[in-house]
Amino acid sequence: MRISELSRRAGTPVGTIKFYLRERLLPPGRPTNRNQASYGEAHVNRLRLIRTLTVMAGLDLSSVRLLLSAIENGRLPLAGLYRVMEAAVAADHRCTGGPEADAARTDVDALVDRMGWSLDQDAVSRRQLVEVLAALKRLGSTCEVDFFLPYAAAADDLVQGELDFVPAAPTNGERAAAVVRGLMFEVALTAMGRMAREHHVTRRFGPAAED
Amino acid sequence: MRISELSRRAGTPVGTIKFYLRERLLPPGRPTNRNQASYGEAHVNRLRLIRTLTVMAGLDLSSVRLLLSAIENGRLPLAGLYRVMEAAVAADHRCTGGPEADAARTDVDALVDRMGWSLDQDAVSRRQLVEVLAALKRLGSTCEVDFFLPYAAAADDLVQGELDFVPAAPTNGERAAAVVRGLMFEVALTAMGRMAREHHVTRRFGPAAED
Repeated sequence: MRISELSRRAGTPVGTIKFYLRERLLPPGRPTNRNQASYGEAHVNRLRLIRTLTVMAGLDLSSVRLLLSAIENGRLPLAGLYRVMEAAVAADHRCTGGPEADAARTDVDALVDRMGWSLDQDAVSRRQLVEVLAALKRLGSTCEVDFFLPYAAAADDLVQGELDFVPAAPTNGERAAAVVRGLMFEVALTAMGRMAREHHVTRRFGPAAED
Repeated sequence: MRISELSRRAGTPVGTIKFYLRERLLPPGRPTNRNQASYGEAHVNRLRLIRTLTVMAGLDLSSVRLLLSAIENGRLPLAGLYRVMEAAVAADHRCTGGPEADAARTDVDALVDRMGWSLDQDAVSRRQLVEVLAALKRLGSTCEVDFFLPYAAAADDLVQGELDFVPAAPTNGERAAAVVRGLMFEVALTAMGRMAREHHVTRRFGPAAED
C-alpha cells in the first residue's frame, strides 16, 4: 500500500510516519519508484504499536526505541522485558533513608511475605513501594500494610490473568502484545481507581463545580 | 531557623530551596538582616509537600504550582481538587472513534453500572478507560469487562479507605495531605501490580537475566 493508505489504516498523519521513517523506528518500505515506496501489514502493526506506546502509555521516542529493541531481542527473557517496560514508565525513586524508610521496608517485607511473592530485595517495584510508604509516614499519613492486602490480592489475580494471554514461547509479535497489555492494564487500573474516587468523593463531599 | 537548618530538616539542598523561593513556590522567610531570613515549620511542611509532588509523583513545577493553588483555593470542592490532581498526572487521551471505541464505551458503561458508580459520561478517568480498552481491542487483545470487575471492587474499597482519612471540612493542610495520599496510593497500587507481575512472570517464564 502507499503511505496515504498506511496513514489511514494506522490513524497516523503522513508527516508523523515520515518522521518515524527518518528516525528508523519504522523500517523503510519497498521502493516502487524514485519518490514512492510500498508498505505492508507489518508496517500497519508496527505503527499501531508505536502509537499505543507514545499516545496511550505516554512514552518518549527514546523509550519506545529501547522497548522495541528489547522486544526484538529474543535472548532477553520476558521477566527482563517487563523490567525494561517498567523502567520506561516509572520515575526512578532514589533510595532515601531515615527511620520512616526503615519502618516502610519492614512493612513491605511483611506484605511480600503474606502474599508469598518471591522478589529480589532490590526489585524496582519493591523499592518504589518502600519509598511511597516512607513518604506517607513522613507526611504523617501512616497506613498499616494490612490496609493494602486485599488490594495486593486483587492485583495478584489480575496479573495472573494478564499473563495467561502470553504463550509459553512467544514470538516477537506476542512479546510486543504482552508489553502493551501490561502497560494498558496499568493505565486501566489507575483509571478504575480514579472512577471509584470520583464517585465516592462526590457522594461524600459534593460535586466538583466551584460555587 | 536558618536556611541551612531548613535544608537539613526537609532533606532538600539549599540551592533548590533558593530556586523555589525565586519561583515563589515557597513563601519568603522573615528577614533577619540584609542577607538572611528565618524560616518556620510551615516552610518545612511546604518543602516536604513540594518534594513529594516532584520527586515521588513526578510532577513538573507548573503542575505543582497549579495543584498548590487548587489546594489553597478554599472555594474549590474536594472533587474539583482531585480533578486538578488527576489532570496533573494523567496523559490527556484524545477521543478516538471507530467500532473499537464504541464497543469499549459499552463495556465501560456496563462496568460502571455493575459497580453502582455515579459518574459523568465525560469524566476523564472514564474516557481514559474507554481509550485503553479500545487500544487493547485494536491490538487484538480483547478483554471481557468481567475480567476487571474483582479489581474494580478492590479499588472501590481502597478508595473508600483513602477517603476515610479526610475530615468533613478539611483545612488547607488536610487538603494537601488528601492530594498527596491520593497520588501516593496510585503509585503504591501500580508498584504492587508490578511486584505481583515480577513474581509470576519469573515463576512461569524464568528469571530476568539474559542467557
